[in-house]
Amino acid sequence: MAEYMESLQHLAEQFGKLEGVGRKTAMRLAYSVVDMSVEDATAFADAIRVAKERIHLCPVCQNLTDRELCPVCRDDSRDRSTVCVVADAKAVLAMEKVREYRGVYHVLHGLISPMNGVTPDNIKIRELLTRVGEGEVEELIVATNPTIEGEATAMYISRLMKPLGVKVTRLAYGIPVGADLEYADEVTLCRALEGRRSVED
Amino acid sequence: MAEYMESLQHLAEQFGKLEGVGRKTAMRLAYSVVDMSVEDATAFADAIRVAKERIHLCPVCQNLTDRELCPVCRDDSRDRSTVCVVADAKAVLAMEKVREYRGVYHVLHGLISPMNGVTPDNIKIRELLTRVGEGEVEELIVATNPTIEGEATAMYISRLMKPLGVKVTRLAYGIPVGADLEYADEVTLCRALEGRRSVED
Repeated sequence: MAEYMESLQHLAEQFGKLEGVGRKTAMRLAYSVVDMSVEDATAFADAIRVAKERIHLCPVCQNLTDRELCPVCRDDSRDRSTVCVVADAKAVLAMEKVREYRGVYHVLHGLISPMNGVTPDNIKIRELLTRVGEGEVEELIVATNPTIEGEATAMYISRLMKPLGVKVTRLAYGIPVGADLEYADEVTLCRALEGRRSVED
Repeated sequence: MAEYMESLQHLAEQFGKLEGVGRKTAMRLAYSVVDMSVEDATAFADAIRVAKERIHLCPVCQNLTDRELCPVCRDDSRDRSTVCVVADAKAVLAMEKVREYRGVYHVLHGLISPMNGVTPDNIKIRELLTRVGEGEVEELIVATNPTIEGEATAMYISRLMKPLGVKVTRLAYGIPVGADLEYADEVTLCRALEGRRSVED
């Protein structure tokens, strides 16, 4: 019974390749496509093709864009001496929502992870080095997630940049605003203590 | 910033039309497509088109199929006098997993829901009536979910079939196997009591 609709199975397999989509969800999504009107399904298929065709990496910061440069690199009012280094394009969107940040970005498209076979050569570190080498960059704010891979990547970049005289900083760790101390994990609490600041700051 | 990649936004909107996909998930899935290789993205778009083109309703039971008849209706060993009535094609898969059931199916493609404007005319009830009218059917097992809509649909079918002399049954309600009485809701417990059977059964 399970193999009877090859085209549905095949579609479910395609959905299964997407991030965070398991076997059951993939099947549900495939059924959902079959329930769509022909127009909607065609529009969906076209949207995939068009997005994949048009979207490429910004040659300056490696962020995703469908124009020549990404909107941040196009914007003359941004401060090109400060570069926020992030793991992926979604992190750029998250940072941009804050509206506080006026520097530019560099998207690594991954994090160093020897366990998963990801070396510095597999992510956009060479591009970062070239960019810093051009002399305009004064500070790199490494905004990778506080995970093992995020930390390892931050450390690697920091060591790489040392001889170049570029300041490398890391986003502050601490208790999330509005959170309860009671529920903070020990590592976060420990980092929050280490990073404590004077109230008159 | 948010509107900068029209093609990505458009793709996310298409994902958002799928069942159970919210705005954030849709965006994550769209990014996931951009991260795919060109070959994978093309295969994905093609799979949508092919599935939509090939899959249609079985003219007998209204289940989804990519052949002339669905596999159950094609199978000569199935008992055509017993028809299990389900809301959608996914329910057929769930029932088939049991391997106990040797009858055939009828897929309604929805449940009666006046609140959402779904009347008996919007689901495959007319096809069920035609099928029963052909005289081979002796029992309809209504296996819609035990929700308000599922109950209303079961009730409607039961009343519709009464004059035709067809036996209409409903799946048994009760405590799920392996579940703890303590966590069963009152309605289920009440139904389980009503449906109690002699141990010597």
